[in-house]
Amino acid sequence: MTELAFSKQEGLIPAIIVEDLTGDVLMLGYMNEESYQKTLTSGHTWFYSRSRDELWHKGATSGHYQEVCKIITDCDNDTLLIRVKQQGGSACHTGAKSCFFKELQ
Amino acid sequence: MTELAFSKQEGLIPAIIVEDLTGDVLMLGYMNEESYQKTLTSGHTWFYSRSRDELWHKGATSGHYQEVCKIITDCDNDTLLIRVKQQGGSACHTGAKSCFFKELQ
Repeated sequence: MTELAFSKQEGLIPAIIVEDLTGDVLMLGYMNEESYQKTLTSGHTWFYSRSRDELWHKGATSGHYQEVCKIITDCDNDTLLIRVKQQGGSACHTGAKSCFFKELQ
Repeated sequence: MTELAFSKQEGLIPAIIVEDLTGDVLMLGYMNEESYQKTLTSGHTWFYSRSRDELWHKGATSGHYQEVCKIITDCDNDTLLIRVKQQGGSACHTGAKSCFFKELQ
């Protein structure tokens, strides 16, 4: 079994969330081991909120849950890429489909 | 001008690197302000290596430079998405096109 490197960042691993259907990057969130396990068992993404210091079931407030299609780790097991089916059409709290909408250059 | 939130993670901001042509996620790296500025001025990605504690000009060893096409920040300015033209066809030190090739689920 692949050991994820939660230890590199104070127990957190970044998870890039990608829309399975289109391949579009929707957001980046952080998982600790507990939220990762909840993601595995529930089939929905669970994150760890650094600002609120608590687990966060994505969509619990908005209804915009993310159904997990596939979990992929990178070559050194310190980043996840999770392909999801995004419910409600938007991953961002602003209502945008993706959190990445501000072009800098 | 958009202020990036380098402060949230001890001066580092994660950068999701996406192949501009295909939209595929290639890797995730970290930038400090200096590597971000070098990325802006050089047009190539520069990262901060947490393990080596030094700036890292991606491709300097392999020749697999990443030409910056577009830089996008997320809704709260604490993650970058950088669309690149990947030289040499692979972003990963294993020779894989993308660092994300290990499926967990």
